[in-house]
Amino acid sequence: MSSKKLINSVDSCVDEALCGLIRANAGLSLLQGHRVVLRSDLDNLRGKVALLSGGGSGHEPAHGGYVGAGMLSAAVAGGVFASPPPASILAAIMSLHNAGASGILLIVKNYTGDRLNFGLAAEQARNHGVTVDMVIVAEDCAFDRPSKAGRRGLCGTIFIHKLAGALAEEGSSLDQIVAKVTEVLKGIGTLGVSLSPCSVPGCLPSFNLPPGDMELGLGIHGEPGIKRSKVASADEVVKTMIDHMTNPDSQSYLPLKSGDSVVLCVNNLGALSCLEMAVVTRAAIICLENLGAVVARVMSGSFMTSLEMAGMSLTVMRANEEILRLFDAKTAAPAWPNLSTARVSGHSYITGPPAMGTRPQDDKHSEGPLSPVMRKSLERVCSTLLEKQEELNSLDRAAGDGDCGNTHAQAARAIQEWLQDHVVPGCPGKLLSVLAGLVQEKMGGSSGALYSLFLTAAAGHVTEGRSNAAAWASAMHAGTQAMRRYGGADPGDRTMAAYCASFFFFKLIIVFDDVCVHIFPELPFFLLAGRASYIAAERVTLPDPGAVAVAAILRAVQESLEGQK
Amino acid sequence: MSSKKLINSVDSCVDEALCGLIRANAGLSLLQGHRVVLRSDLDNLRGKVALLSGGGSGHEPAHGGYVGAGMLSAAVAGGVFASPPPASILAAIMSLHNAGASGILLIVKNYTGDRLNFGLAAEQARNHGVTVDMVIVAEDCAFDRPSKAGRRGLCGTIFIHKLAGALAEEGSSLDQIVAKVTEVLKGIGTLGVSLSPCSVPGCLPSFNLPPGDMELGLGIHGEPGIKRSKVASADEVVKTMIDHMTNPDSQSYLPLKSGDSVVLCVNNLGALSCLEMAVVTRAAIICLENLGAVVARVMSGSFMTSLEMAGMSLTVMRANEEILRLFDAKTAAPAWPNLSTARVSGHSYITGPPAMGTRPQDDKHSEGPLSPVMRKSLERVCSTLLEKQEELNSLDRAAGDGDCGNTHAQAARAIQEWLQDHVVPGCPGKLLSVLAGLVQEKMGGSSGALYSLFLTAAAGHVTEGRSNAAAWASAMHAGTQAMRRYGGADPGDRTMAAYCASFFFFKLIIVFDDVCVHIFPELPFFLLAGRASYIAAERVTLPDPGAVAVAAILRAVQESLEGQK
Repeated sequence: MSSKKLINSVDSCVDEALCGLIRANAGLSLLQGHRVVLRSDLDNLRGKVALLSGGGSGHEPAHGGYVGAGMLSAAVAGGVFASPPPASILAAIMSLHNAGASGILLIVKNYTGDRLNFGLAAEQARNHGVTVDMVIVAEDCAFDRPSKAGRRGLCGTIFIHKLAGALAEEGSSLDQIVAKVTEVLKGIGTLGVSLSPCSVPGCLPSFNLPPGDMELGLGIHGEPGIKRSKVASADEVVKTMIDHMTNPDSQSYLPLKSGDSVVLCVNNLGALSCLEMAVVTRAAIICLENLGAVVARVMSGSFMTSLEMAGMSLTVMRANEEILRLFDAKTAAPAWPNLSTARVSGHSYITGPPAMGTRPQDDKHSEGPLSPVMRKSLERVCSTLLEKQEELNSLDRAAGDGDCGNTHAQAARAIQEWLQDHVVPGCPGKLLSVLAGLVQEKMGGSSGALYSLFLTAAAGHVTEGRSNAAAWASAMHAGTQAMRRYGGADPGDRTMAAYCASFFFFKLIIVFDDVCVHIFPELPFFLLAGRASYIAAERVTLPDPGAVAVAAILRAVQESLEGQK
Repeated sequence: MSSKKLINSVDSCVDEALCGLIRANAGLSLLQGHRVVLRSDLDNLRGKVALLSGGGSGHEPAHGGYVGAGMLSAAVAGGVFASPPPASILAAIMSLHNAGASGILLIVKNYTGDRLNFGLAAEQARNHGVTVDMVIVAEDCAFDRPSKAGRRGLCGTIFIHKLAGALAEEGSSLDQIVAKVTEVLKGIGTLGVSLSPCSVPGCLPSFNLPPGDMELGLGIHGEPGIKRSKVASADEVVKTMIDHMTNPDSQSYLPLKSGDSVVLCVNNLGALSCLEMAVVTRAAIICLENLGAVVARVMSGSFMTSLEMAGMSLTVMRANEEILRLFDAKTAAPAWPNLSTARVSGHSYITGPPAMGTRPQDDKHSEGPLSPVMRKSLERVCSTLLEKQEELNSLDRAAGDGDCGNTHAQAARAIQEWLQDHVVPGCPGKLLSVLAGLVQEKMGGSSGALYSLFLTAAAGHVTEGRSNAAAWASAMHAGTQAMRRYGGADPGDRTMAAYCASFFFFKLIIVFDDVCVHIFPELPFFLLAGRASYIAAERVTLPDPGAVAVAAILRAVQESLEGQK
């Protein structure tokens, strides 16, 4: 069975894809009656060399995506993996010629069909008096020994699009461009690897590859490669590829010596995730640098795809200053990436950490009158949470992931440890910051973040010199607002025990300033009595474990305070 | 079994992917000890608002790829699909603050973990005296009814990166930026669809979706969507999505009225082929235009992925001139595409075909003395090829696709039809052009291209006034060279019957100028005797069907000429 694709029909998909490209980019137009993408500013070609490339579809964004000032003047598409017809190639050539181009360069990947059809159109154009030349891109490094068909043209083609495009844009002659890219082509090599086949719309997969296997050196139409093996690590795969590409024992190797400056293209063949692409990109840069190469530029993305093949290819181009200048030149082609013109190798890519001071829990604190009271209450809270660990887990298993007791126990143990070798600061705001730091680091998850958020937002509002009821009211307000804003929780919500948690801290501060209770007359009795969980119980079958935890904390604080009165 | 990925290890893949991004782009750097991507030109932030975004990994190029002048100042990454820790967010904020930023805007997708962790870091930064604000992006249009968690933040986030980045770059204040993007956010909507799940490295796929099914409205972490169905056509899927997104009966709809100007983002969720993406892009532009919208800009590619999920999302943003100005502003962010600043809707995207004259086979020709001889030879060739059709097919089945006889028969019938209502031109070059046109159009494939290539390259060298032996020699040379150059075939090659074909035409022209046989003394006897196929027979078990065809043609021409002597 052929895999299901998001298209309208097998017959229309190529034309619709071209239409999509052209409609999305106002700089492109379609040549009527042909699968040809043209620059919409053909007038700007007058007196310059025009560049035409193309080939089968299924390699998008190649080649239509590379049409624009500074790259191709036009691109002609065939059916999926099929060479375009000579009549369309000729129509493209004549359009460029009629626009006043001084000459036309055809950039053709080394496949028999493309060579013949572009060649035929070139001969026909010559009979029409057009100056035409052709370069064949054949940079595949897969095969050790020469074959009759020669090396395949792969992703390296877009380097030629770019360099020839920059030369044409600055007014070089056809002969100059051909000479330059012919020289450049000797310094380009590509090798591909894939973890899956692709399937032409309406057809079976192009080949079979068992899950977990990979094929090295395959072509962009699924042509056979040179080796199959189990998928190795990204680093190993990349090293195998670059070693093979640069091995002088292979007829198709890319000569590379220490100190050579190179441009690297990491090309997604279709369905590799961007995460994997980035891992591979790192491996390729490091591998080239280990060979002594200076990596000058890197492009990583989908440039010459094979439909939905899950694989990638590496293209390496030796590049002197002149080549880099052309590579860096501006282009309007929509598929060309937004690259920096700074050298990759040697750039310092680590920034030192910011000066942020120590964590609150590591700061030196001085005690105050309330310190012993607060210490006793905290100790009672911690022991209570440890006793309730299993009960909370059990409640949480009904609704969540069953670790509510564990996370609270983690926080409790962290506070216990901290209490062992620290004084409790006399400044209540400092204590809140310490507790915020401890629960953020040791409790984790949403509940840790919520507790910490409340404490952090509240901390700035109460100091040793300003801890009266009004200050506590501001602190409570700030903490609650922060929880509501960032947590998105409101009174009555069950989601994150957010509101209940806020009352825990409200209750806690009663330790510090017994007066403030009087300024919150709206506070319901059952909360002061530590019965927050009953609200939840009225609404759902089982009480929310977070609310039960908060209730337990409140009760512990209350009992501790009562014991100390 | 979890799917095999091209990484080094589950534990290292996030850090290595970040390293790959940063190493590949000299404009980026890594904050030491954190998963934070920073602009490497932090000095340029002095006195400006800095922008920080981030979230779980697995959405590459988000968010690190959007760091650069004109977009984000920094991005912080969590594990795959996991919110980043507050300590790293705080470290990023403090780095931007220490660089002299006048304020920090946090751009956060609406997920509980991200809200809490960014919120916590914001509160901590405020306690350090930093001016911080936050905008929450929540533009998912999936759900008809409000939910507690609210709308999810999806690909629309990158529009906010872009617009806020442009504002920051031009010196807007934190309050101005917050006010502007808060307004813009009301006009952004996103909806996703997927044909496959994705899998977090080391884990099972995030959900099950039978092949051939699709899920509408799902989240970028594989969160459930709103509907499952069989995969429909691209046009239908897109229409369903945009209708749902703009339906006023849905709580999360995007208000859109006729005449509204919009920016469209077609986002690859990971593994959709670029061909499919382009088909979908076309459908989305047309669908929006059918609703009366003016599509101002389109971006299509991988912007906010879900690992290797085979799906896409559509984001639509209402955009006035001010928004478009900000959208078009330059940015150094590597993942921002190379977009045209011209309006998409209304741009004329069809270019008329070039003036090329008629096809040679349609031209008016005048007869000459050789016309009757040439007609008789061509008739004999055609009848011979039709008699040999099955023999050639049978030979071809052993080595090729078994259609060699059919393609030659197609050419023969095309020539027969042409002979019925056309005169044979007296100018041999014109006849060659006619034959080239006929075989190119009717024969097709490599053999059609090769025959046509030879004829086209040869045609220009022989005219009615210049058809002596020297002219034919040039023509033969040009034809053979063209075949060798474009076909890559040399004498003795079996691949495309190339050389044999060249001798066919060589022999044919003996009709026109019997003298020329004397100037090619090296021509082996067996070819003149029509035995080309025996060369092939010596080398391989079965003769090459193309060579047999050529031998048959030669014999037919020879017999015809002998009969006319």
